[in-house]
Amino acid sequence: MSSRIAKLREEVRQRRKERARKPTTIALDAMGTDHGPEELLRGAFDAINLIPTLTVIATGPKDRLHSILKHHGWAHERIQIENATQVVEMKESPKDSLRKRDSSVAVAAKLVKEGRAAGMVSPGNTGATMAVAMFQWRTLPGISRPAIAAFIPHPKHPCIFLDAGANVDCRSNHMFHFGIMGAVYSRYMFHCRNPRVGLLSVGEEDSKGNELVFETQELFRDSTLNFRGNAEGRDLFKGQFDVIVCDGFVGNVMLKFGEALVEFIFEHLKSEIQNSVVSQLGALAMMPVFRNFKKTVDYSEYGGAPLLGLNGNCIICHGSSKAKAITNALRTADDLVGARVNQHITELVEKNAHCNPSKMGRKDDPPAQGGHK
Amino acid sequence: MSSRIAKLREEVRQRRKERARKPTTIALDAMGTDHGPEELLRGAFDAINLIPTLTVIATGPKDRLHSILKHHGWAHERIQIENATQVVEMKESPKDSLRKRDSSVAVAAKLVKEGRAAGMVSPGNTGATMAVAMFQWRTLPGISRPAIAAFIPHPKHPCIFLDAGANVDCRSNHMFHFGIMGAVYSRYMFHCRNPRVGLLSVGEEDSKGNELVFETQELFRDSTLNFRGNAEGRDLFKGQFDVIVCDGFVGNVMLKFGEALVEFIFEHLKSEIQNSVVSQLGALAMMPVFRNFKKTVDYSEYGGAPLLGLNGNCIICHGSSKAKAITNALRTADDLVGARVNQHITELVEKNAHCNPSKMGRKDDPPAQGGHK
Repeated sequence: MSSRIAKLREEVRQRRKERARKPTTIALDAMGTDHGPEELLRGAFDAINLIPTLTVIATGPKDRLHSILKHHGWAHERIQIENATQVVEMKESPKDSLRKRDSSVAVAAKLVKEGRAAGMVSPGNTGATMAVAMFQWRTLPGISRPAIAAFIPHPKHPCIFLDAGANVDCRSNHMFHFGIMGAVYSRYMFHCRNPRVGLLSVGEEDSKGNELVFETQELFRDSTLNFRGNAEGRDLFKGQFDVIVCDGFVGNVMLKFGEALVEFIFEHLKSEIQNSVVSQLGALAMMPVFRNFKKTVDYSEYGGAPLLGLNGNCIICHGSSKAKAITNALRTADDLVGARVNQHITELVEKNAHCNPSKMGRKDDPPAQGGHK
Repeated sequence: MSSRIAKLREEVRQRRKERARKPTTIALDAMGTDHGPEELLRGAFDAINLIPTLTVIATGPKDRLHSILKHHGWAHERIQIENATQVVEMKESPKDSLRKRDSSVAVAAKLVKEGRAAGMVSPGNTGATMAVAMFQWRTLPGISRPAIAAFIPHPKHPCIFLDAGANVDCRSNHMFHFGIMGAVYSRYMFHCRNPRVGLLSVGEEDSKGNELVFETQELFRDSTLNFRGNAEGRDLFKGQFDVIVCDGFVGNVMLKFGEALVEFIFEHLKSEIQNSVVSQLGALAMMPVFRNFKKTVDYSEYGGAPLLGLNGNCIICHGSSKAKAITNALRTADDLVGARVNQHITELVEKNAHCNPSKMGRKDDPPAQGGHK
């Protein structure tokens, strides 16, 4: 056991050393968030101070961004500005957003495409970001759909689940690739040696599920992945899986349901507390516990979710992201580049080329289409 | 507003009066629960004491059940026993369970089929209960699939969602019927005058969803239901919908995810509390608040979930149901019969016969098949 830990530590140290030698540039869509570019640039400034090898290229109206940097004393050679004259609004459809060739998100994606940045962070309209990234970068060889990887911030055993909303009508080959992407992400970002992959279903037994589950099971069984069969909704918290694969529709519904449930519980407790002074004092005494819990589940601690499977590294953040979330997203993007996640995905896809979904009678594969039309 | 409330009250009073005149008999699968028949019979005894017009027929090994009743002094003319020599185990598949013609659940369903009971309560193997009820009762006219209706116990605005797991591969016509059943259930059991029906999807806008959502939207739009468009996972807590329709796969995953999330939160808080005496005292002071919350979300307060759409009334309970849950389930079954929910469903289906799903290009409808194969 101790030798395994020593090995792991050595690996992490090696990775750090290697990264320390390699400066990374990340593009930041500075016009995305609800809180304005100031908040984003503050996040960028904190990030470059945290990571001495990081350079951030913020995209947006040059003069405005420059004046913000100047005003706050954030001007730094590792924060560069790339001019973008347009902005994609939160309500705009992905289709419309593609027409804005000079939007902050399009310019950020272009920087990655041209090799001037190794990845991008976008806290804007998720559908638009996906559309622009798909359009400009295309998918990795062998991958037909990208996926958003979310994770349950369990203090002991974080569990990744994907797709969390990039696709709404998935086929077994898409699900299979989500499993590959999730396994690579878990291995190289969460340092999980041999990620246990599960398939979200209505029961643990192989016989429980829908058509999509049964088809995907077959692909996983033939693969080199450490496939552990069906997982249930509750398994996201039990530590028996490191990666849980699901259709983007289910993943997205679950994500939003979970966020609202946590909110509902604390709102409910809050309103109950109002009824008694003793409870109020109790809540005061429990404040550090609540604060710790909030920190555990707070998305801004993790920054954002990666959009995996594309010819480029992309971190998608909440539209309500503040500086801290942006700093963490930039750090995650930097890690994603350093860990060469995309290269490992391509390798694992090649290794599993024998898992041919066409044998499942699903040769037809309509063009990729995000849920955020 | 006050006249509306007065009207509602009058309606409830009328319904009570009507029910007070009508004795109801409910069959109870007494061999289902993990806690043994004793717990179930205790629940039945409490139920008949609570509802003076209720008679319970418990199904199971006659001698054993009689001796339990005698031993505890629960013998009562309104608790009858119907002999059943077999028991369906929790792990048995629905297919296998159908072969046990003299199981406690099969006998309970038979009592309903023969008109000796108006409904049944089963805390056993959910898949087996569904299979037996489907096989013996068949679906209501015009309905092709039954659905399990679950609900979010929000203190202000409870929201029903269905299907919570009876079907795993749904078509638009099934989803449409779930909407009808949910609307009737909400109206006659939750006294919601004009239930607002939503369709679970990945975004509020009509353009967001998967193929199934788009097809179902069209059916709902043509219907007499108060259809309010797409709902998101978070809308289960927001009070903008009374009924949310979803595929049984999604509903089941969400239900289990939600249960596990609540558990995770309280486990996490508990473990954090251990670290400080002040927090422990705080938790002690907050105990009534936590207890109240537990009561709000405790399934045993509600007893069980109805399996709607069949030619009979069925309440499905947790396998771990204790006496209190059984009492509440029997009460719900009695209410379901009294409110003539099935009759209202049939009427609403007829009223919406013009919403013909065949125009959606989905004429083929494979035979009904539960997710619990």
